[in-house]
Amino acid sequence: MQRGPADADWMAVAIALSRRGRPVSAPNPNVGCLIVKEGKVVARGWTQPGGRPHAEAMALGVAGDAARGATAYVSLEPCAHASPRGPACSDSLIAAGIARVVIAAQDPDPRTDGNGIARLQAAGIEVVFNMLPAEARAVMAPWWTRHTEGRPFVTLKLATSLDGCIARADGSSRWITGDRARAHGHLERASHQAILVGRGTLAADAPRLDVRLSGLEDRSPKKLLLTTGEAPEGWTAIASPQAIDDVDSVLVEGGAGAASAFLAADRVDRLLLYRAPILIGRGKPALADIGLADLADAHGRWRLSDSRMLGSDRLDVYERAREG
Amino acid sequence: MQRGPADADWMAVAIALSRRGRPVSAPNPNVGCLIVKEGKVVARGWTQPGGRPHAEAMALGVAGDAARGATAYVSLEPCAHASPRGPACSDSLIAAGIARVVIAAQDPDPRTDGNGIARLQAAGIEVVFNMLPAEARAVMAPWWTRHTEGRPFVTLKLATSLDGCIARADGSSRWITGDRARAHGHLERASHQAILVGRGTLAADAPRLDVRLSGLEDRSPKKLLLTTGEAPEGWTAIASPQAIDDVDSVLVEGGAGAASAFLAADRVDRLLLYRAPILIGRGKPALADIGLADLADAHGRWRLSDSRMLGSDRLDVYERAREG
Repeated sequence: MQRGPADADWMAVAIALSRRGRPVSAPNPNVGCLIVKEGKVVARGWTQPGGRPHAEAMALGVAGDAARGATAYVSLEPCAHASPRGPACSDSLIAAGIARVVIAAQDPDPRTDGNGIARLQAAGIEVVFNMLPAEARAVMAPWWTRHTEGRPFVTLKLATSLDGCIARADGSSRWITGDRARAHGHLERASHQAILVGRGTLAADAPRLDVRLSGLEDRSPKKLLLTTGEAPEGWTAIASPQAIDDVDSVLVEGGAGAASAFLAADRVDRLLLYRAPILIGRGKPALADIGLADLADAHGRWRLSDSRMLGSDRLDVYERAREG
Repeated sequence: MQRGPADADWMAVAIALSRRGRPVSAPNPNVGCLIVKEGKVVARGWTQPGGRPHAEAMALGVAGDAARGATAYVSLEPCAHASPRGPACSDSLIAAGIARVVIAAQDPDPRTDGNGIARLQAAGIEVVFNMLPAEARAVMAPWWTRHTEGRPFVTLKLATSLDGCIARADGSSRWITGDRARAHGHLERASHQAILVGRGTLAADAPRLDVRLSGLEDRSPKKLLLTTGEAPEGWTAIASPQAIDDVDSVLVEGGAGAASAFLAADRVDRLLLYRAPILIGRGKPALADIGLADLADAHGRWRLSDSRMLGSDRLDVYERAREG
């Protein structure tokens, strides 16, 4: 007999759906929801732009009567608090007749934090939780970092030659990486709420920093400038890596000074390293001083999480290995 | 019916055997030979240290009477010239009663260069040639480069941080890469006839440059110093990348000056990039000036030929993409 998908397989689909809400679901978490009945998907939902409807509300709306007796897979604990913008999702799941709810991660928001699970169980619904929590948290990293650490999730992008240069000595850097790597960089822009550059990069490259991918033009993020001075029109001045308080995800695009300031402050959560198969020699280094006192201190901080070829360039993604 | 190995499969084994002779078969090419009869391997041979016996002679010696009617797979055309050190291998194959010879690459040595094939065919032996020639030439690259271009095959090794540094600004570089990457570096030493460093590296690190792998201690290569001055005892002074004439393979181990001199002279055939998952920031760059006039000129020169993880370090191997 052929075995159908297990709970973990369905949850992986719900988590994949949750990626669609990133970053447009802000200020709400980007959640994914899958409703399954008798081994078949009857509805899919994900947090909509601006944060409403929630993933569960969207999926229940699609499922209609088919929700009765079904299992809902949700990447974050359903909320327990009603708001002027809509009812609590745990109540909506109960009202729709859902028989079983599988949850990836418990909601750290104190208004829910276990209350959603308790309410479902009190209504006689079978609840399974901690199904792929690390995977769900990774996709919700911006919201999660904001809610648990009170700061944005920061990705640092470096595009270098094999010898680690980001430009020739005269500053010329068009182009180090190829089309596919640059397109991937634009996709990363589209999944961040803000992009940040330093003053040198603004002056040298006058970067547009918009998303130049068909269908995603409206995803162009907010533009931040790392400076103790004024920012030009269309830009927001940020005095230090610690001073970002109104976005949950920031992509640091350059240059070496901005990158190094974020690394020195230990405010980088994820590294995107695009590397072209070229050698430059005596070019502009990717980083300035990051405050490394001893080579031993450099080890154990970064864990490879993804690696792929983009044309003839390689992308390596590293995540900051933090304690606990 | 299960299909047995095809000619290309057997040849791949012969080419793998040929690797064993590198670099100890010098001044002769490192050839591999497999003798197969009725679908079974009856003998294996590879060029022995110092160049004799040849691969075919070794394999025929093992096969004895079993060679009669068998197929010989040879990674290089069997030689057609007898020498005081032994008979021509094409004559030996004929005398042993080999029925069929499959050859990867034709011998560029003018004393053979087609004569071996002709002699085998004249004796009524079926000859198949051009079976995996590129693969065979790659394994024989040092000998091949010496015979076709009159210069050694040069591998450049760089061990860097993610931001392309080979040391901290104060010169400290112990250790950037981990145990497995360093052991791989020693294995690379063992497959080269000579290792080269620049004067700065000699002064700063006083490198032993020997092979510290159990069973391969006797493979420690000749030590070359890139300098216009004198070399200390145990070292040979090399005035320029063009001035190496008595070895077929050189591993350039550092530092940035020596690496850049070989790159600027376009004398690097293969790049070994060991990269540790650390960031240094304002460290010593891997390269100095390599004479790059325009970023566009940097593209298309290097082709990724191998990539693997060595513990938490990544090794990328690039080969110089040359015309023709």
